[in-house]
Amino acid sequence: MSQPSVPTHGLELRSTISSEGQLKLELAEVAIRPVAAGEVLVRIEAAPINPSDLFLLTGPADLSSATGGGSVDRPTLTAAVAPQRLAAVTARLDQSMPVGNEGAGTVIAAGDGGEALFGKRVAVIGGAMWAEYRIARLQECLVLPDDTTPAEGASAFVNPLTALAMVETLRAEGHAALVHTAAASNLGQMLNRVCLADGVKLVNIVRSDAQAAILREIGATHVLDSTRDDFDAKLVEALAETGATLAFDAIGGGTLANRILRAMEVAEQRKMDAYNRYGSNTHKQVYIYGALDLGPTHLDRNYGFAWGVGGFLLTPFLQKAGAETAKRMRDRVRAEIKTTFASRYTATISLRDALDPATLLAYSRKATGEKFLIDPTR
Amino acid sequence: MSQPSVPTHGLELRSTISSEGQLKLELAEVAIRPVAAGEVLVRIEAAPINPSDLFLLTGPADLSSATGGGSVDRPTLTAAVAPQRLAAVTARLDQSMPVGNEGAGTVIAAGDGGEALFGKRVAVIGGAMWAEYRIARLQECLVLPDDTTPAEGASAFVNPLTALAMVETLRAEGHAALVHTAAASNLGQMLNRVCLADGVKLVNIVRSDAQAAILREIGATHVLDSTRDDFDAKLVEALAETGATLAFDAIGGGTLANRILRAMEVAEQRKMDAYNRYGSNTHKQVYIYGALDLGPTHLDRNYGFAWGVGGFLLTPFLQKAGAETAKRMRDRVRAEIKTTFASRYTATISLRDALDPATLLAYSRKATGEKFLIDPTR
Repeated sequence: MSQPSVPTHGLELRSTISSEGQLKLELAEVAIRPVAAGEVLVRIEAAPINPSDLFLLTGPADLSSATGGGSVDRPTLTAAVAPQRLAAVTARLDQSMPVGNEGAGTVIAAGDGGEALFGKRVAVIGGAMWAEYRIARLQECLVLPDDTTPAEGASAFVNPLTALAMVETLRAEGHAALVHTAAASNLGQMLNRVCLADGVKLVNIVRSDAQAAILREIGATHVLDSTRDDFDAKLVEALAETGATLAFDAIGGGTLANRILRAMEVAEQRKMDAYNRYGSNTHKQVYIYGALDLGPTHLDRNYGFAWGVGGFLLTPFLQKAGAETAKRMRDRVRAEIKTTFASRYTATISLRDALDPATLLAYSRKATGEKFLIDPTR
Repeated sequence: MSQPSVPTHGLELRSTISSEGQLKLELAEVAIRPVAAGEVLVRIEAAPINPSDLFLLTGPADLSSATGGGSVDRPTLTAAVAPQRLAAVTARLDQSMPVGNEGAGTVIAAGDGGEALFGKRVAVIGGAMWAEYRIARLQECLVLPDDTTPAEGASAFVNPLTALAMVETLRAEGHAALVHTAAASNLGQMLNRVCLADGVKLVNIVRSDAQAAILREIGATHVLDSTRDDFDAKLVEALAETGATLAFDAIGGGTLANRILRAMEVAEQRKMDAYNRYGSNTHKQVYIYGALDLGPTHLDRNYGFAWGVGGFLLTPFLQKAGAETAKRMRDRVRAEIKTTFASRYTATISLRDALDPATLLAYSRKATGEKFLIDPTR
């Protein structure tokens, strides 16, 4: 199947960190090769800015040093990276990296096997999505219901599948209930809707009254503010009530994971009738899936030996879960894309806007309730 | 089956921490009840002092304040516990706790089903072993070969089964090689012998030349000193060479677990041909099974998201591994009790000696190469 009038070139946002310690963002004009069998060409019409994208986009750069350059049509942005922080990104130095985990758009060309997708609106996962066009393998695409807008479909993978993966993990590892931090995020709101629908008890941890209000409004029952003096005591109560021994933490640094593990242990010890010097034998687990606090994680290990802390990432989870589970998860996302998995965006910007220093600072703040969408057709 | 001339009373070492913050060790005279079906009465003839015993024996007490008391026949020892450290032991306050994870002795009475053990030398696990007599369930006993001395059989459970559990974990979780810290310990030496016999590559981490020499003498190939300036670089080399992505750590506090995870990631990234912002997808795991450093564990998470740190304890491991695996492990310990699983003791003391303040300080030092044995028949 061949299509006429397919574009030959398109703009793609690229990020480079040089060995000399300079971050450079630019829009590269890249040639669009013909689609092969099992591939489609997607015109990207919406792509969210997720915290995980920022990790690749700006890495350890000092954003306060961000400076605009280039032309109006082809702006660039540069920023300094402190020498001692270069070691963490050795593997990517001096490479021009495309950015953007996911997006949605329209299939404008299809290779053999992809004919059914031609003209359809699809969500796409796999990186390099902050671009005008993206060649995608069929398995990277989720065909959206016909009435789905690009903005509605833009975040069909990362947050929805992560929320579902948390509940899948809860079941696979045999926990009674779940704890989630930074719980007022778009992902956290989805997770509340999933848990309410599935009858899974969820303890939400937030850091402000405003965040707590967001969650109460959508029906969350356990909402705790970690900045309050009585947080640890209230957490123990919520854990004792729900039996939660699994937490997903988006913060990463600091002592929150430790406080959760300690509170889980205190709640578990209430159930024990005899002293065990090793603490409770009930396994307590915190998975760190984000890094809102880039500082080190402190664990005082004051919760026996039946505990674990580890990184959590969607792609390895899906590989381990297997094709059947992954398909079931994707089918649910498609069916509930406008309800359970709806995202709200506070601003829509162009690819060029994304290179504007002030705009970069705004979308890099990761403020609760704020979420940016890139529309590469602008 | 009934036996005449079975003792009616025996001494048992007890540890109490009071709500007021005082540790008290004493020898309690306890009545010996008749053995029931499925039980035997063991005269304890040797019991090791393991680091895990000290945790229960003295807990968070300040040993420099240890003071002797009581009579020559029935000595006592008291020490202060700082008020802020009492919270960690709330569950045991004001309870008189028997001590001693394991030991060996002779079966001097047997209930129904235990007749075959009468007169045999057995190793026993399950606590309360720092005593003249111990009633044990049959499944807590390992019948030793007839020519085994009490000292040879005293440490048949904790260290041997933990060493074997590490290799079992390696296989179950699919790792290529193993890292062990505090590697010159009795346990570490056993682990080297197991790994040499089984062809498992082992990277030993020690903290002095003397410790390194102990291991080289028994044939260890990878021995690294974490106090050296070039430790991190050498660790990466050893990990790249062996492919080790699993570590068992007896230290717990500080940055060693973090340095191991970072070195694993650097070694793994050498194998990658493309940059992945999330780091290597190979899972890197550190299990903390000891607490030689009681301070907090610091994790800077500079190793992607495919990592885990967790507590490790033998009993839950054995429960999870199942009866067949546990039996295979115990059979191997019995067969190799004088070779692979031989322990060396630098001093043998009586129950009364264990309450002597100077002796307590000596065996609480957990110095490499030093291991104390209690002989309750003295």
